[in-house]
Amino acid sequence: MHSTAEFQEKVKQIFSQIDLDAEPRELYEPISYTLGLGGKRIRPLLLLMACDMFGGDLNDALNPAIGFEIFHNFTLLHDDIMDQSPIRRGKETVYKKWNTNIAILSGDAMFALAYKYLIKTNEKVLPSLLTVFNQTALEVCEGQQFDMNYETMEKVSIGDYIKMIRLKTAVLLAGSLKAGAIIGGADSTDADHLYSFGENIGLAFQLKDDLLDVFGDEAVFGKRTGSDIVCNKKTFLYLKAFELAKGETLKQLEELFSSVGTDNETKIRKIKNIYSELGVEHFAEEAMDNYHSNALTHLQTIKVGTEQKQALTEFSTQLMKREK
Amino acid sequence: MHSTAEFQEKVKQIFSQIDLDAEPRELYEPISYTLGLGGKRIRPLLLLMACDMFGGDLNDALNPAIGFEIFHNFTLLHDDIMDQSPIRRGKETVYKKWNTNIAILSGDAMFALAYKYLIKTNEKVLPSLLTVFNQTALEVCEGQQFDMNYETMEKVSIGDYIKMIRLKTAVLLAGSLKAGAIIGGADSTDADHLYSFGENIGLAFQLKDDLLDVFGDEAVFGKRTGSDIVCNKKTFLYLKAFELAKGETLKQLEELFSSVGTDNETKIRKIKNIYSELGVEHFAEEAMDNYHSNALTHLQTIKVGTEQKQALTEFSTQLMKREK
Repeated sequence: MHSTAEFQEKVKQIFSQIDLDAEPRELYEPISYTLGLGGKRIRPLLLLMACDMFGGDLNDALNPAIGFEIFHNFTLLHDDIMDQSPIRRGKETVYKKWNTNIAILSGDAMFALAYKYLIKTNEKVLPSLLTVFNQTALEVCEGQQFDMNYETMEKVSIGDYIKMIRLKTAVLLAGSLKAGAIIGGADSTDADHLYSFGENIGLAFQLKDDLLDVFGDEAVFGKRTGSDIVCNKKTFLYLKAFELAKGETLKQLEELFSSVGTDNETKIRKIKNIYSELGVEHFAEEAMDNYHSNALTHLQTIKVGTEQKQALTEFSTQLMKREK
Repeated sequence: MHSTAEFQEKVKQIFSQIDLDAEPRELYEPISYTLGLGGKRIRPLLLLMACDMFGGDLNDALNPAIGFEIFHNFTLLHDDIMDQSPIRRGKETVYKKWNTNIAILSGDAMFALAYKYLIKTNEKVLPSLLTVFNQTALEVCEGQQFDMNYETMEKVSIGDYIKMIRLKTAVLLAGSLKAGAIIGGADSTDADHLYSFGENIGLAFQLKDDLLDVFGDEAVFGKRTGSDIVCNKKTFLYLKAFELAKGETLKQLEELFSSVGTDNETKIRKIKNIYSELGVEHFAEEAMDNYHSNALTHLQTIKVGTEQKQALTEFSTQLMKREK
């Protein structure tokens, strides 16, 4: 068994070995740049931990782990075009630094590259590994489309929101874990439980993201809070607030989220106050804890010893407790 | 052995069975629309013919054939955004009919979908099938990037152009054929010869495209000729003309291709005249015939009987003789 730090070191190491010294540079430079932006590398970590949990050979898991992370970064690259986000991880996004065409195409190339790494593994697992990956990739696209739809949709329920974040975020964590389980030699029941573990962790993870964006400690969070509020993003907090608010509070919420005049600082402050008044933070935390606890139930069901599950148990708890 | 018409019928049939009745509709409708635009379906035809040539089971080839065609259509969808082309096959392109975000995302989903179909085949061939497909997909992106680079590059040689069309067009025909060979049980030498056959056919195919765009008979071609001239596209004809032209003719060419004032009809007429004067049409035909003949040499080397090669021999000759 390896510690989280050891897995992290392993992931860092394999990432430093990716060779993107190819032509045309206009295609490969944005890929190097994107992969060099860093990030938490959660998906490859989960994949390695899952493989290790079943006693699998980590060497079979390294390249697929890179594949999942390249895929994730590809989706961010294309999302940034669609959302017109100029900054990612403190640096200019690809479409801003280069242009939209280069961002579209280098994203496409990353998708192909993800598959190149994905299939460098034990041939026996390819059919199930690819089935998980393909389904996940398609669902992530579905999630992004729902997300875009919701921007202009009048009525979005919390159920709609959960469906969207399940597709956009949770299935990729779940898919990484299931891929690791498959490579590690898990039977299909265990692999499916690990998938469900990941799905629930993913939902909790996104709720934590929603919470941090509003209630995070800026000094630790590393960026300004309130960006979801400024963009009128229909997060769990937003939707819960509209579900709970009545009378004057509801009117205020509606005005604040439709106003273009209010300056951002005032808007954030007023909405945070309403959120606190309504207690939406606690509803979000409760939902998050429920998903986390569902996740752990699935993990417990898996037929390996507690010690083998330790890395994933600890890591998932860390994700829930994180302050950035 | 089957006839070209039988293969075409088979391809038509499997295409009519693709199920895209999923949510969100904003993601899947543009995919249905794109796949419904038709086209020559050359890549799936080549894949089936290749499989059949080696006596393979066509049922193993049907889904991968769809996979290659979905991939091809995905690249067209994204190319249309990058090239800002409003019309494809007589209909509005996806980014025009919907919007750029939907075009980016439904393209991404098509890429994932291509893989879903690709892997529905005999599991034993998956590693080699995926290796060919991944490499091809990456090279097609490289080709598109070179194509975009050439738009603003001062000096493009015919060698550069051939490298670009090899990547952008030829490798996908080659990859489809090699995939068919692999599924059909060919040994690697034969599969590689079929790949080279496809590469050469692909280059000849693109030169034929360049020729038809300028010298095609509009009544048969089905659309206006001269669109490459209007866009100042650096085709084989353009590059050969600049290579050969001297003095007054060179000056005229430079003026015509840099002018924004000249009306399109006059520009097309004048450039066609210069092309004819310089004989670039014949150089293009000669190059095309050379590639075709190289292709046939590779086909002849393959260790199956002449009868088994008939479908591909005939089909490649048809592609060279086509008037649209």
